[in-house]
Amino acid sequence: MTIAVIYGGTRPNGNAETLTDLAINGLEVEKIYLGEYLIQPIKDGRHSEEGFQEVSDDYNSIINRLLPHDTWIFSTPIYWYSMSGIMKNFIDRWSQTMRDANYPEFKTHMSKKKAYVIAVGGDQPYVKGLPMIQQFQHIFDFMGMTFEGYVLGEGNKPGDILNDKKAVYAATELLRR
Amino acid sequence: MTIAVIYGGTRPNGNAETLTDLAINGLEVEKIYLGEYLIQPIKDGRHSEEGFQEVSDDYNSIINRLLPHDTWIFSTPIYWYSMSGIMKNFIDRWSQTMRDANYPEFKTHMSKKKAYVIAVGGDQPYVKGLPMIQQFQHIFDFMGMTFEGYVLGEGNKPGDILNDKKAVYAATELLRR
Amino acid sequence: MTIAVIYGGTRPNGNAETLTDLAINGLEVEKIYLGEYLIQPIKDGRHSEEGFQEVSDDYNSIINRLLPHDTWIFSTPIYWYSMSGIMKNFIDRWSQTMRDANYPEFKTHMSKKKAYVIAVGGDQPYVKGLPMIQQFQHIFDFMGMTFEGYVLGEGNKPGDILNDKKAVYAATELLRR
Amino acid sequence: MTIAVIYGGTRPNGNAETLTDLAINGLEVEKIYLGEYLIQPIKDGRHSEEGFQEVSDDYNSIINRLLPHDTWIFSTPIYWYSMSGIMKNFIDRWSQTMRDANYPEFKTHMSKKKAYVIAVGGDQPYVKGLPMIQQFQHIFDFMGMTFEGYVLGEGNKPGDILNDKKAVYAATELLRR
Repeated sequence: MTIAVIYGGTRPNGNAETLTDLAINGLEVEKIYLGEYLIQPIKDGRHSEEGFQEVSDDYNSIINRLLPHDTWIFSTPIYWYSMSGIMKNFIDRWSQTMRDANYPEFKTHMSKKKAYVIAVGGDQPYVKGLPMIQQFQHIFDFMGMTFEGYVLGEGNKPGDILNDKKAVYAATELLRR
Repeated sequence: MTIAVIYGGTRPNGNAETLTDLAINGLEVEKIYLGEYLIQPIKDGRHSEEGFQEVSDDYNSIINRLLPHDTWIFSTPIYWYSMSGIMKNFIDRWSQTMRDANYPEFKTHMSKKKAYVIAVGGDQPYVKGLPMIQQFQHIFDFMGMTFEGYVLGEGNKPGDILNDKKAVYAATELLRR
Repeated sequence: MTIAVIYGGTRPNGNAETLTDLAINGLEVEKIYLGEYLIQPIKDGRHSEEGFQEVSDDYNSIINRLLPHDTWIFSTPIYWYSMSGIMKNFIDRWSQTMRDANYPEFKTHMSKKKAYVIAVGGDQPYVKGLPMIQQFQHIFDFMGMTFEGYVLGEGNKPGDILNDKKAVYAATELLRR
Repeated sequence: MTIAVIYGGTRPNGNAETLTDLAINGLEVEKIYLGEYLIQPIKDGRHSEEGFQEVSDDYNSIINRLLPHDTWIFSTPIYWYSMSGIMKNFIDRWSQTMRDANYPEFKTHMSKKKAYVIAVGGDQPYVKGLPMIQQFQHIFDFMGMTFEGYVLGEGNKPGDILNDKKAVYAATELLRR
């Protein structure tokens, strides 16, 4: 088992990152900070004559780094009750990779991944973050990935999350199960 | 009452747009196609010393066009069980506008808006699109906007949506209530 | 195709019943009004030594009437954001039937059923009724039933539902698809 | 602060009860086992001429025991992705109490309560139990109760829940926050 973390945050040392650090403490992990890269939104070419067009950005190189890992942790602040827009753009692009001749077995590879979600929000994340968890379930179901677990935490200012003892404990235990 | 439509689709004449056309048929409407603009992801500056930084993109000009309208229709394809990434990035940026001295009354203005959602997806949108509807409810609740109604429809190829008679009827009636 | 309707309402001519009448207009239908029967809550005997105990009530006779039909319509008022308690008690008892030697193929039979839900509520059912729809989806998924469609409607006083044009139309079309 | 627990389980020493014991360990608590009482389903009399009828069962005596307590813990097994039918029938009856001249301030009293939910299920409760949590939120919002927290746990056979370390920890901490 090797692990990759996909960070959707947009500030250094945000609460989702801090909480994720507790989950991966002591493990060797490939870290991808989406905010450091250019990821274009998808252009839906499924039904256009010319199909999907090659995109000049960092998306494919990120996918190439991720694919060798069998455990993917999605770590995101909860913005407006969902994952960050940059993480959403990243996932939207999977629709293109599924039709990319350079990734002929993309969905099959994905179906072997184990997925975790770690997310922190400031406005009642334990209730208002639940639709996001349901969406991740649908996403993982579609790809055949197994949704191994998630942690929701509450925090606004960097560091806040350490006061959410339930989230801290759950993160610490997340990968041990 | 004046109306603006915020399109989150990324292909011309997509199903969400077609369904929206039925809702606004015969009305004068300000149309914003997010896919035609550059909208940067938010950089969370809420708790950094320097705060939010000015961003050089089309976001503010879009907001300026939208604010005069009291009815906003969010029209989006359902990508991966949620709004498109470009629409999510657009909404994420509201967090910055709420702290932007150039928009001192942003939230107050927003609280007077009526909101509608029109969304089309290909994988059981009537059930798997529900978390997205719940998120829009949370978003509108936070801003104090009233969620006047929504239409979910099913379709993949452009034009499919016209076979979803329930959605077609609901779109036609949406603004009449 | 033969149809049964399971009514969870507790007053005559309630809004959910009225809306259901529009869906089944002109069709021959077996009608089960749960409120007219005694249905005991389940006693979970899955892991007790003596197992489930025979229950003296109307549940089995209702199941016997329902099983021949391949289309089941669950028609319920939305009480406290979910199906009525009597309908919930009815469904809870399925856990016993699944282990009842008199119904050796219960789950297999159920897996061939088509299911519909028609529900009417007074407090924003189009949004606050969505968790109930998700629960029905989980219920049907567990049993292998196909969830063919649902209609949510808004109403309080008997007859109110006829003013919800979207629901009226959707009910009228529900079984035609 | 005094505490009441409302148990919705139907077998002794079920997992939800075991998990709840960890939350209330060492505290004085009023315990109500709904399964030991007769609670009739509601008969909706809101719009009938004669109104709600007096019901001869244990519901009012339960309410009388609960009302003095300012913290209510709803402890339920997850049956079919929701609270048990007996708990649902109990909550359904609140609609009658809100119109009962003997409880003139029912909703006002309820609005001062703090509410917790502890629920255990066997089929992916961390995801498939989320609609139930959303329903409790809607219920508490309607009554003005504050939703202080919840614990979901996984288990089937009695005692299973003690292997769900995350749930055990969360239950232990639930009332300490």
